[in-house]
Amino acid sequence: MSLTVNMSRLRADLVSLSFIGRLTGGGITRTSFSAADLAARQWYQARCAEAGLALRTDGIGNMFAEAAGAGNGGAGSGAARPAAVWSGSHLDTVPDGGAFDGAVGAVAALESVRRLAEERVELARPVRAVVFADEEGNYNHLLGSTALARDFTRDELAAMTGRDGDRLVDAITAIGWNPDALAGNRADPEQVYAFVELHIEQGPNLEASRTDIGVVTSVVAIGGAVAEFRGRADHAGTTPMTRRQDPLRAAAQLIAALPAITATVSDTAVATCGKLVTFPGGANVVPALVRMLLDYRDPDAGRLARLDERLIAAARQAAAAHDVTLHWAAEPPVAPVELNPRVRSAIGASARGLGLSAVAMPSGAGHDAQNMATLAPTGMIFVPSRDGRSHSPAEHTDWEDIENGANVLLATLTGLATTGLPDSGSAGA
Amino acid sequence: MSLTVNMSRLRADLVSLSFIGRLTGGGITRTSFSAADLAARQWYQARCAEAGLALRTDGIGNMFAEAAGAGNGGAGSGAARPAAVWSGSHLDTVPDGGAFDGAVGAVAALESVRRLAEERVELARPVRAVVFADEEGNYNHLLGSTALARDFTRDELAAMTGRDGDRLVDAITAIGWNPDALAGNRADPEQVYAFVELHIEQGPNLEASRTDIGVVTSVVAIGGAVAEFRGRADHAGTTPMTRRQDPLRAAAQLIAALPAITATVSDTAVATCGKLVTFPGGANVVPALVRMLLDYRDPDAGRLARLDERLIAAARQAAAAHDVTLHWAAEPPVAPVELNPRVRSAIGASARGLGLSAVAMPSGAGHDAQNMATLAPTGMIFVPSRDGRSHSPAEHTDWEDIENGANVLLATLTGLATTGLPDSGSAGA
Repeated sequence: MSLTVNMSRLRADLVSLSFIGRLTGGGITRTSFSAADLAARQWYQARCAEAGLALRTDGIGNMFAEAAGAGNGGAGSGAARPAAVWSGSHLDTVPDGGAFDGAVGAVAALESVRRLAEERVELARPVRAVVFADEEGNYNHLLGSTALARDFTRDELAAMTGRDGDRLVDAITAIGWNPDALAGNRADPEQVYAFVELHIEQGPNLEASRTDIGVVTSVVAIGGAVAEFRGRADHAGTTPMTRRQDPLRAAAQLIAALPAITATVSDTAVATCGKLVTFPGGANVVPALVRMLLDYRDPDAGRLARLDERLIAAARQAAAAHDVTLHWAAEPPVAPVELNPRVRSAIGASARGLGLSAVAMPSGAGHDAQNMATLAPTGMIFVPSRDGRSHSPAEHTDWEDIENGANVLLATLTGLATTGLPDSGSAGA
Repeated sequence: MSLTVNMSRLRADLVSLSFIGRLTGGGITRTSFSAADLAARQWYQARCAEAGLALRTDGIGNMFAEAAGAGNGGAGSGAARPAAVWSGSHLDTVPDGGAFDGAVGAVAALESVRRLAEERVELARPVRAVVFADEEGNYNHLLGSTALARDFTRDELAAMTGRDGDRLVDAITAIGWNPDALAGNRADPEQVYAFVELHIEQGPNLEASRTDIGVVTSVVAIGGAVAEFRGRADHAGTTPMTRRQDPLRAAAQLIAALPAITATVSDTAVATCGKLVTFPGGANVVPALVRMLLDYRDPDAGRLARLDERLIAAARQAAAAHDVTLHWAAEPPVAPVELNPRVRSAIGASARGLGLSAVAMPSGAGHDAQNMATLAPTGMIFVPSRDGRSHSPAEHTDWEDIENGANVLLATLTGLATTGLPDSGSAGA
């Protein structure tokens, strides 16, 4: 298999994309449905138009691109059309994030579809590039792929709010989309032959072991909650320290306890408070309310459940210790997912075919692949992250590593779309 | 002395003012130079116009109202005009504050000027009602009265930012005022005979001891700082708990230490974090930066200095413990102030003359009176706060207590403007 990506085009695409939502400090804020996210969508549409690809956007904002016409595995033949091989990732970022998380996999999938079309490779089934909406979960973790996997009820959608407190349905209305179309976007599993996602590792392991490619075995289980401690606003000058009901003291106790709590569960368990808000927020007012966003993970569902219990218990304890009340709003936990051994085997074979080293590894980050795994055989390809940094302007992956990953992706997609899934047996690297 | 306030008018004024900036939850947000603050200023101007009072606003937003013409202690006689008796407080509030803090003293001073004019009381010197700008320190604690007492340099003014990060000079420009006029508003001490401020206690002591009137002996010393802990943004899922540089952990350690630190200084020392911000603020991102607003106080300047040192030491310790850096930006401390014995004596005598109980007491809150004390003999009158609550929608003072306080104010102002300061001797209650 000599087909490879056009690296100068792929690189130029990633560079031009990285300027959309760029902050003066070098980070990128392209949170979902923001002006920057819409600009990135227009940029993606222009790339598709340039390449003669057909693009469709569903009601929740997932985008699907594929070549039309001859050589595309029977595209356009309607109901009798074979199930497609899907590949993609996301274009949205966390606030002040990096240029590689999501973008690498989304653009490499687009590049793979472009290369297959340019070379008029004869396919048994179509290859479809996907951009998933709101992977980073400004409104809901893995919003777009969850909609494809299980759909949302209108009540669930109506309850979703962003980190600034704005409702998803209002944000969608504000950008001129139809909020009624947020529901009813489930994908037909019969139309998905397999799914492969390329992504940066976002951890230090590939770099440390000097390995080119990670073949992902499983994706971590994720829990989340909004914890609110409510106390009593008082004058900061006239209220004795011993008479206060200061919810920030309870929040501080919980934050300080997080490392010890995760350590009781496993070495790999993590728990993070990424955002904390004090209300009313006057310098000379004891806070009345503290709201904390909590994110916690473990590769094992049972251990995640224990972590969840212990965090709630610690939060209750902190509230009681400081005479404030606790309101704990749990997000539905994301189950851990085993990725498909046959897809892992195909990825491993593609890496070997390109002379690249590969290692099997779990993912500590959540990915759209975990939702796609409920629809079709699914695999993930990791490439190294410098110093393990991600969700930061310091996020970096060398162009050579991106080229390696994109070529493994293209080779794997080509194999799946021509000869199909390999027999099970040697799973991955 | 039978002159008393028109309580139905004073009450109606306080009620109508309480609807300006009112939130749905019952609290009031009338932070300085906001739309609500401007509405309150227009409301005050209308009350002055209605009463035939002359109103002047200086370049930083302090307002001065007084009667013109006969019976006003020589008003209009130019340079030969005698120094005036000043009284007032503020109309701005903390975010989600109450209806009494500031408003009671500002409206009672206005009412006193109105009553003296209505009754054509023959005065030896004019009485002037004052509204001080930004007492609550959205931009700078006691902004307006500090400008009267010592003025600000243009550099100081240019550096002032509000709690939302907006610059004072930009806020002033945005409302159509002249930012160049923020400097140069110092008052001429020769023109101030004395100053008296009526205020709610904002603490529990008067209510607990069933006393009508507090005669304030001194105003607390206040320190403030913006503490920033800087760590490293990382992915919340892929970064092990032991590899993080999470500034929120350092902030939590400092918050938890506050009660113990204040206890080493005195029983009355307090320290508060009223606002804490996490950046970038994504649920799945370890924070890179935590910014905390700190407010700390003690009635004694030496003890405040010790408190300041111990807070900085604790913040440094917290930064070191969690491998993050600390940036500590101190606000200039507000010195404690002894109030004038002769004015305290005049207030005590007025209370006794009205058959009210009175007690001498210090103030744990900062007040514009502490700046006015550097210009002229100054006193303060406290009335009870229910359950000691303030800086909260739960703030409450009974109408009867407000009437008592306003009558003590009117009697004191009348005495000062006619017979003048009493001999020193029996200081206060």
